[in-house]
Amino acid sequence: MTAETAANKAANANEVDVLIVGAGPAGLMMAMWMAQYGIKTRIVDKRGSKIFNGQADGLQCRTLEIFDSFEFGHRAWMESNHMLEICLWNPDEEGIIRRSDRIPDTIPGISRFQQVVLHQGRIERFFLDAIQSCSDIQVERGVLPSKLEVDTSLVEDADAYPITVTLRHLSEEEATPKQTATSQNGTSIQDGLFRSNLAPDDTAELINGAKLNDKANTEEVVRAKYMLGADGAHSWVRNQLGFKLEGESTDYIWGVLDIIPITDFPDIRMRCAIHSRDAGSVMVIPRENKLVRLYIQLTTTAKIGEGGAKADRSKITPQTILQSAQRIIAPYKLDYRKLDWWTAYQIGQRVGTQFSMDERIFLAGDAVHTHSPKAGQGMNVSMQDAFNLGWKVASVVKGLSNRTILKTYQSERRRIAQDLIAFDHRFSRLFSGRPAQDVMDEEGISMQEFKEAFEKGNLFASGIAVDYGSSIIVAKKGSSEEQGDGTDVAVQNKNLQVTSVQTLASKIEVGKRIPSFKVLNQSDARPSHLQELLRSNGRWRVIIFAGDVTEPAQATKLKTLGAQLARPQSFLNRFTPPSGRYDNVFELLVVHKAPRRDVSVFDFPEVFRPYDEVDGWDYWKIFVDDESYHEGHGQIYQNLEVNPEGCSVILRPDQHVSYVGPMDAYDDLDSFFAGFMIPQATKSSGHI
Amino acid sequence: MTAETAANKAANANEVDVLIVGAGPAGLMMAMWMAQYGIKTRIVDKRGSKIFNGQADGLQCRTLEIFDSFEFGHRAWMESNHMLEICLWNPDEEGIIRRSDRIPDTIPGISRFQQVVLHQGRIERFFLDAIQSCSDIQVERGVLPSKLEVDTSLVEDADAYPITVTLRHLSEEEATPKQTATSQNGTSIQDGLFRSNLAPDDTAELINGAKLNDKANTEEVVRAKYMLGADGAHSWVRNQLGFKLEGESTDYIWGVLDIIPITDFPDIRMRCAIHSRDAGSVMVIPRENKLVRLYIQLTTTAKIGEGGAKADRSKITPQTILQSAQRIIAPYKLDYRKLDWWTAYQIGQRVGTQFSMDERIFLAGDAVHTHSPKAGQGMNVSMQDAFNLGWKVASVVKGLSNRTILKTYQSERRRIAQDLIAFDHRFSRLFSGRPAQDVMDEEGISMQEFKEAFEKGNLFASGIAVDYGSSIIVAKKGSSEEQGDGTDVAVQNKNLQVTSVQTLASKIEVGKRIPSFKVLNQSDARPSHLQELLRSNGRWRVIIFAGDVTEPAQATKLKTLGAQLARPQSFLNRFTPPSGRYDNVFELLVVHKAPRRDVSVFDFPEVFRPYDEVDGWDYWKIFVDDESYHEGHGQIYQNLEVNPEGCSVILRPDQHVSYVGPMDAYDDLDSFFAGFMIPQATKSSGHI
Repeated sequence: MTAETAANKAANANEVDVLIVGAGPAGLMMAMWMAQYGIKTRIVDKRGSKIFNGQADGLQCRTLEIFDSFEFGHRAWMESNHMLEICLWNPDEEGIIRRSDRIPDTIPGISRFQQVVLHQGRIERFFLDAIQSCSDIQVERGVLPSKLEVDTSLVEDADAYPITVTLRHLSEEEATPKQTATSQNGTSIQDGLFRSNLAPDDTAELINGAKLNDKANTEEVVRAKYMLGADGAHSWVRNQLGFKLEGESTDYIWGVLDIIPITDFPDIRMRCAIHSRDAGSVMVIPRENKLVRLYIQLTTTAKIGEGGAKADRSKITPQTILQSAQRIIAPYKLDYRKLDWWTAYQIGQRVGTQFSMDERIFLAGDAVHTHSPKAGQGMNVSMQDAFNLGWKVASVVKGLSNRTILKTYQSERRRIAQDLIAFDHRFSRLFSGRPAQDVMDEEGISMQEFKEAFEKGNLFASGIAVDYGSSIIVAKKGSSEEQGDGTDVAVQNKNLQVTSVQTLASKIEVGKRIPSFKVLNQSDARPSHLQELLRSNGRWRVIIFAGDVTEPAQATKLKTLGAQLARPQSFLNRFTPPSGRYDNVFELLVVHKAPRRDVSVFDFPEVFRPYDEVDGWDYWKIFVDDESYHEGHGQIYQNLEVNPEGCSVILRPDQHVSYVGPMDAYDDLDSFFAGFMIPQATKSSGHI
Repeated sequence: MTAETAANKAANANEVDVLIVGAGPAGLMMAMWMAQYGIKTRIVDKRGSKIFNGQADGLQCRTLEIFDSFEFGHRAWMESNHMLEICLWNPDEEGIIRRSDRIPDTIPGISRFQQVVLHQGRIERFFLDAIQSCSDIQVERGVLPSKLEVDTSLVEDADAYPITVTLRHLSEEEATPKQTATSQNGTSIQDGLFRSNLAPDDTAELINGAKLNDKANTEEVVRAKYMLGADGAHSWVRNQLGFKLEGESTDYIWGVLDIIPITDFPDIRMRCAIHSRDAGSVMVIPRENKLVRLYIQLTTTAKIGEGGAKADRSKITPQTILQSAQRIIAPYKLDYRKLDWWTAYQIGQRVGTQFSMDERIFLAGDAVHTHSPKAGQGMNVSMQDAFNLGWKVASVVKGLSNRTILKTYQSERRRIAQDLIAFDHRFSRLFSGRPAQDVMDEEGISMQEFKEAFEKGNLFASGIAVDYGSSIIVAKKGSSEEQGDGTDVAVQNKNLQVTSVQTLASKIEVGKRIPSFKVLNQSDARPSHLQELLRSNGRWRVIIFAGDVTEPAQATKLKTLGAQLARPQSFLNRFTPPSGRYDNVFELLVVHKAPRRDVSVFDFPEVFRPYDEVDGWDYWKIFVDDESYHEGHGQIYQNLEVNPEGCSVILRPDQHVSYVGPMDAYDDLDSFFAGFMIPQATKSSGHI
């Protein structure tokens, strides 16, 4: 296809670069990236409206960091309920529940955010507002994909649209989920059973409903370069591809109540794990607007429904769930006047066999991993799937990166899903089991083991521990197969192989997201968290930790590096489109540690404070590790253990560390990017 | 008038409780309070649209605290440019400008916010959004008052509408301010001359224009209980009342440029005061969006225009202003490609003789004080006028307080205006004068004196130092006349005279706003700044600093106090309307300092954690001075120097301290409120 016909085709409304199926948190995260990059995108959801009540979920520290990188973290932070402390309640020697431990809900120091809880509907609102503020991408609701075809002969053609999808537009009635109406004090209460796996998937119903109502329906055929199935546990996309979920399919049955509690239990505003002697367990999750979510174990002794049979949902009502809770929390009293939402579920731990087809169609979120909700992981891991994928797809669509980076999605995220499932399996068993009466009680659960699992789970649940394996975009030692899910994502051209020198900054761990400490802007002395400089706008960052630039050796290295970067043939200039601004693809940041007052930006090579004819010099690229007037000293060199000789750091657009090496290792930087980036048309002259 | 006919009249759309003239920051602040209280209010502005460019202004720490109390402080904080450091530049021995000092822009520790700069249009937007979110008050633009009558015989009748105003609705054309179009690179640039006092007042023109265009006009007559004139330096309301501004009416002439600077001056992103040897002075105010505001002295040697004559504005253009700046900042270069806005002004220091007529019509903001803009005070003091007034008027309109509290507006705010004018007069002289060449140069300005004035001005400019004098609502020793502007606002019934014991908490200074430190919620361990608990929702707060409540003496005092507060005849119950929630008028807060883990809310008398049939116990009233997991230890007892025996503190709805006394001084609390509050219909039983 010539460039011209491709351009003509792209003008067609039915040809899109990216088609997203499902507008839950994972789908919206994908759309958010596409909006940032300006990628032609459609996002459809079979539901006629976004969800309203229920579906609160914990937000991990890392999720809040990601939200903040899209500039809506503060909205979640302000509206959410913050959980600070976990209280563990266990039976004492008389079998009466007592508080046995208090542990911090978020491990102190791992993030500038702490775990919080917020209604999913609000989170979707933040995404929708943010997407709208920077793009014309609109969620199309009541739209259902009904047919999928892929021309596999085109998958390696960058300009091709190998995916063809038929979309059916539903009537409003069809697109409204069937909810069980529960009457409570004369008001009907929403419940979540329609989305629980205790209720059958309603996709087939929706399609059939649409068939019966021809007038309301229209169909259209869409061709796409890339596609994401973020369409939930019953994923239509996954089913079309014939991919499976593997793992256990059943678990204990749990009920969920969202209530304003009336109780004399003193820790009702703390996150609590309550193990009764023999009535089961309750997890208390305090929420916003005075609400408390209770996860209440309904079956205590055995799994039921093994082999695909479902529990009898007609016996599960808010009243029966409350009664279970009352038995567990006794001798404390528990009641409510206000019930906001309720559901029941029975979900096992399962993970998808494949996360992508030919790196053209991807799956994310519940479509490829299901597990119990109590660990507060579900929405986080789903969003983080799409956060990992989005920038990669966008870079390829924009012609900046070649397609090899797309394989890292499955390698990185399937491994995370496997780890999550293993953790959840163990945690669910410990939480649902009967507490051991003493050390001789081998069938019972050791409360010490439970506490240790909880604490370990806390780090896991923060999202901060995620450590991506060696790959073409993570210059780390070791086997990429072993460090990921088995997919081969190693650098193919061994001449471009780059090796990090982790010891130069041992807390900037290659593979993990970079930790954040405060730095000061050299030009105005304003403190910012490092991560606040790392907005999710698609840029790769090269951070030069330049050390004390008043020392001649450091100044010389900086000058040399600056000269190399400024050359017309530098990676900066080779891989940035001529039309792009100087920081369009790569943003150079300097963090030095000379005393702030001893230097000015004019002491740094101009490539680190680029000049623009209208805007003058850029004052927002050079930072310093020094004392602030009002917010203390970030001590970023000390906290990240940066060597006094400095270092260069490459950060992916998702803040994960690709490379740590010597400050003046220009050749490493160049080789790293040459491994997957596509040279752009050269400019007539350097842009600096 | 009977209650019934009053109610009928209130239903009339042309009868309002409060009429606000002027929708700038002062008028909007007044409307904000009215929205919070649910007061029937109209707000009109003669301009057809809110302002767009220019009119950036510094936001003081205290203003940000106030914004935060209305829950939009974060918006200003996030969008604004933060100013951290002031650099002083003076001529050296060769007459070349050199940086002589760096001082923090905001004195460390005085507030949790620091001074920032933000476009006034954004601030108006935040107000409009916040007002809309809690009321149906709408700003009516292009509406001009044309006639004012007051029936002075009715001013002491709480139910009366003594004010009658004719409002004229302008056509769009009439309501659009005439701006001077300045062409710059082919684009026309807005300027602010129309609002400067170098341009004549356009009110008369607007009225005349309206007369000529009968079809576009409609008139209506509005009757109001209270009225605020927040209509600027040319205040129509002030003129109708015949009140004067007193003080000097002229000053040096200054030009203002809002540009994206292209300069090698190294401190262009700092706030700078630059004194050249003999070319005048420049103030640099770095702004948001890469802009920098420059205040540039255009006349160096003498005041001109004495006696009412105006400067020749035709000679003032962006080019002439820039040339002046270039002369001052030499040998550094200064230029721009982008000019956002410009103006010039010549304003003296003047203050109104009266701030109210019969405590029915009030004036605020520029209508009663004018001064130079360089100290970044104008918008702040104006908004703080209305912040002081609003809750008082609303309390009286709601029948909670008697009218005596309204006299404190003039007493408190006219005194502030007088202090501001004195400061500005001195500061302007120091800033506009020629630097002294040496100690023998008596006509020159001592740069050391200038620096000291700047530092003192910094505290003044923070807004934190505001200290209201003794009055019926400030239980402080001394003469209310001497501590205010001379108005008599002392307690009339000497039996109700209450005396603070300042030594019980020497940093909770009676008359000042309470400083803020972090405390933890007893129920969920979440840290909050104390001020975050003190939202501007119209409530008086009684904070009980209860000390270590695990000590029997403290526990006993708390129990006794709790019992007194819970009695049906307590001030809590006497002055809260029967229909009101338990914290509708008074909010009781406890801040104790027992270890958090050693107590629970159930150890406190129920009046401190009130019970509601639907919501259960209130978990958001009891706080503790203890270590947090992630945000350190607020040490509020230590920082506020609270005596271990505890204390009771009364806070006004505007966070200013009314009273500090012994923890169990119930009688003082009761007498204080009895001094100005109106007993409400008694309930059949106590509500606790």
